[in-house]
Amino acid sequence: MTSTTDISADPEAGAEVRRLDRTHVFHSWSAQGHIDPLPVAGGRGSYFWDYDGTRYLDFSSQLVNLNLGHQHPAVVAAIQEQAGKLATIAPAFANDARSEAARLIAEVAPGDLNTVFFTNGGAEATENAVRMARLSTGRHKVMAAYRSYHGSTAGAISMTGDPRRWASEPAMAGVVHYWGPYLYRSAFFATTEEEECDRALSHLRDTITVEGAHTIAAIILEPVVGTNGILVPPEDYLSGVRALCDEFGIMMIADEVMAGFGRCGEWFAVNRWNVTPDLITFAKGVNSGYVPLGGVIISDSIAEYFRDRPFPGGLTYSGHPLACASAVASITAFHDERIVENARSLGEDTIGPALRALAQRHPSVGEVRGLGVFWALELVRDRETREPLVPFNATGDDARPMTEFAAECKKHGLWPFTHFNRTHVVPPCNTSAEEIAEGVEALDAALEVADRYYTGS
Amino acid sequence: MTSTTDISADPEAGAEVRRLDRTHVFHSWSAQGHIDPLPVAGGRGSYFWDYDGTRYLDFSSQLVNLNLGHQHPAVVAAIQEQAGKLATIAPAFANDARSEAARLIAEVAPGDLNTVFFTNGGAEATENAVRMARLSTGRHKVMAAYRSYHGSTAGAISMTGDPRRWASEPAMAGVVHYWGPYLYRSAFFATTEEEECDRALSHLRDTITVEGAHTIAAIILEPVVGTNGILVPPEDYLSGVRALCDEFGIMMIADEVMAGFGRCGEWFAVNRWNVTPDLITFAKGVNSGYVPLGGVIISDSIAEYFRDRPFPGGLTYSGHPLACASAVASITAFHDERIVENARSLGEDTIGPALRALAQRHPSVGEVRGLGVFWALELVRDRETREPLVPFNATGDDARPMTEFAAECKKHGLWPFTHFNRTHVVPPCNTSAEEIAEGVEALDAALEVADRYYTGS
Repeated sequence: MTSTTDISADPEAGAEVRRLDRTHVFHSWSAQGHIDPLPVAGGRGSYFWDYDGTRYLDFSSQLVNLNLGHQHPAVVAAIQEQAGKLATIAPAFANDARSEAARLIAEVAPGDLNTVFFTNGGAEATENAVRMARLSTGRHKVMAAYRSYHGSTAGAISMTGDPRRWASEPAMAGVVHYWGPYLYRSAFFATTEEEECDRALSHLRDTITVEGAHTIAAIILEPVVGTNGILVPPEDYLSGVRALCDEFGIMMIADEVMAGFGRCGEWFAVNRWNVTPDLITFAKGVNSGYVPLGGVIISDSIAEYFRDRPFPGGLTYSGHPLACASAVASITAFHDERIVENARSLGEDTIGPALRALAQRHPSVGEVRGLGVFWALELVRDRETREPLVPFNATGDDARPMTEFAAECKKHGLWPFTHFNRTHVVPPCNTSAEEIAEGVEALDAALEVADRYYTGS
Repeated sequence: MTSTTDISADPEAGAEVRRLDRTHVFHSWSAQGHIDPLPVAGGRGSYFWDYDGTRYLDFSSQLVNLNLGHQHPAVVAAIQEQAGKLATIAPAFANDARSEAARLIAEVAPGDLNTVFFTNGGAEATENAVRMARLSTGRHKVMAAYRSYHGSTAGAISMTGDPRRWASEPAMAGVVHYWGPYLYRSAFFATTEEEECDRALSHLRDTITVEGAHTIAAIILEPVVGTNGILVPPEDYLSGVRALCDEFGIMMIADEVMAGFGRCGEWFAVNRWNVTPDLITFAKGVNSGYVPLGGVIISDSIAEYFRDRPFPGGLTYSGHPLACASAVASITAFHDERIVENARSLGEDTIGPALRALAQRHPSVGEVRGLGVFWALELVRDRETREPLVPFNATGDDARPMTEFAAECKKHGLWPFTHFNRTHVVPPCNTSAEEIAEGVEALDAALEVADRYYTGS
């Protein structure tokens, strides 16, 4: 919990931060003249606050990366200690923080995924995972889902399925998009989870066939799709994808940048379905993003491929000691504080029931889905037709119902994560049940706004 | 200087670091079974040391990123302070460290480059610079030099001119490579600097013409080519490129990831020739890589293009507070300690003369070139024919003369930066004249090894 003494108002300092930001800082994914970034003064646990002393409960985990919340003391201390010892060293050397981070990650990774290639974040992780898959198979194509995000560098944005890809096309050649399971808006006209699963796998097999299995290096997927909807796969989907990959010699890449490290109530989302991919990409939750860090966890057989052949990829800050030290502290805290178990029970016992109760009261809630601390409320104008509260990829006036909903959340002290016609409930993994109740209360109030746009009966 | 009390031998700890590294860490650009990474225990200033207590003078600045040397106290303290205050916040917010870093960078950037888009490193910086150039011009092609390195993500590796690109092809479409100036091995059969300059610009103009100027969004170049040879351009080359870009409406992107922030004895290499590009990419020296950080500095007119149009790119850790705080401290130290001026005079008064004296004594030194703390000795078998000491892109036995040279440097306590047939002299910008003398003495000894392969008269 935040003591109120942590928070002191200093509006003048905030105004100066904002002025310099608007003069000199270019922001991600934005029309620079149409944003007014809130200056943040501090944060602790599940809360952060601005320079006016206004505190927000963080149901976004920023960009779904703060799995340990703001300013976890053990991780902060580890950064301070490593900074004083050795902030950085080139990738060609060995380093204690780097060795230990790799050991700890391999220890919690499934199956024979025992080797770690460190990057600065998720985009570079997916780029290098694809590079490994292509070279080790000698094949070129990559299959990726339409409802996905894999990063914004040329390779990663090509794999991305959502509209963020459009402005960067054409980028990397050889990417084929397919449809994944999503029963609420089935691409396969299915009506049950089992049917959705069968048809999604059948669609995937058909696409592999017509693309030519021998041309396909990898299938990359988010085991639980993140920003594109918190799409929890049907029970047998991931094992079905694994079987297809095995049948055709295709590498299975699980992009766990958002889903991994506790978010799904598991170390890795794939654990929930006992599936072992050939490569796992990670970032965000590995160290809550306190220092930029990502990476690829590599199966023994792919690592073996590069035993005698040079791996043709790299970066100056691969295995950065400061970043690795923060990962060591974060993973240790995960063990000590039973973070994964907490995320799982929070989802099952607290978040899930609370969100389902909201759906009872608010007609605009079309579906509640999720697991762990990874949930979505899909907002609709009509439960029957499932017409989204705002159109696909809406901006400006078209997006107003969601903009108003988000503003209402903030008015009630909650910082939400909204995307298209959904609000995601993605707090830190160590959020308390009391904090969840507080946030759900704010959602309850904000959903009144969404309900006003409801046109169904 | 390092006091010997900083360094204590602990070979057992080092052995464990090495064992875990070989079990779990996958290294950049390497055949994993053919490397034996040295475990590094610590560093300070221009030195670092291993677990046996062996100390090395760092003439590599690691990967030419440690412009302030190892463990600069002010930068370390800033990291520790910011970690305790607010390690991270999402890119959509404003933050004091982010605002101030952007202000300080804009302040030292040339011309109207006043806005900063922050990334995690150089590869993402070049990817986003090209994205900005393409969208703001409405054109697709990018021209890049053959002797260049721009990063290893799909877009950045496509622009890279050197052999590191080969294994990742085809990646991003639309990149056209051209030859830059390099009088010692002229692509244009030139015999004077002036002739090389004229012919390189003529070649560039001809290539623009046959590619179709209206299809070219950007020319990207390292103002002083880094890993591919420390190629200092002829006096009028960069202004000539600028003029061609102006003539044809092409964006000029200066990749200053390695050359910027003091390396060339200037804040940015382009300053030396009074040239203002449309976009500058940076990383490495901005904060000596103590925390992963890179970015793009953007001209007012390109920033204006994205005032009302959303910029379609981003990353979770854009404008990372911990990274930005370290940049603020580093740039402040640059001002306080006159780092840029020191780098310039170190090059002119100490490194240049010392390396030219080595060339007098060692026939294998075919050329000495550089500026600031950015120098190369090009090693040859014959000064007349200029046959390189090892073939282009040599590995294994073919590379032995260079491997033996590097080993001899280390035997004399010097950590060199070697690439192909060259050794680069790229110490921190705040290295002392005494340390340079110590390193040059080691080079003097190691060049005896290179001389043994000399076959000229």
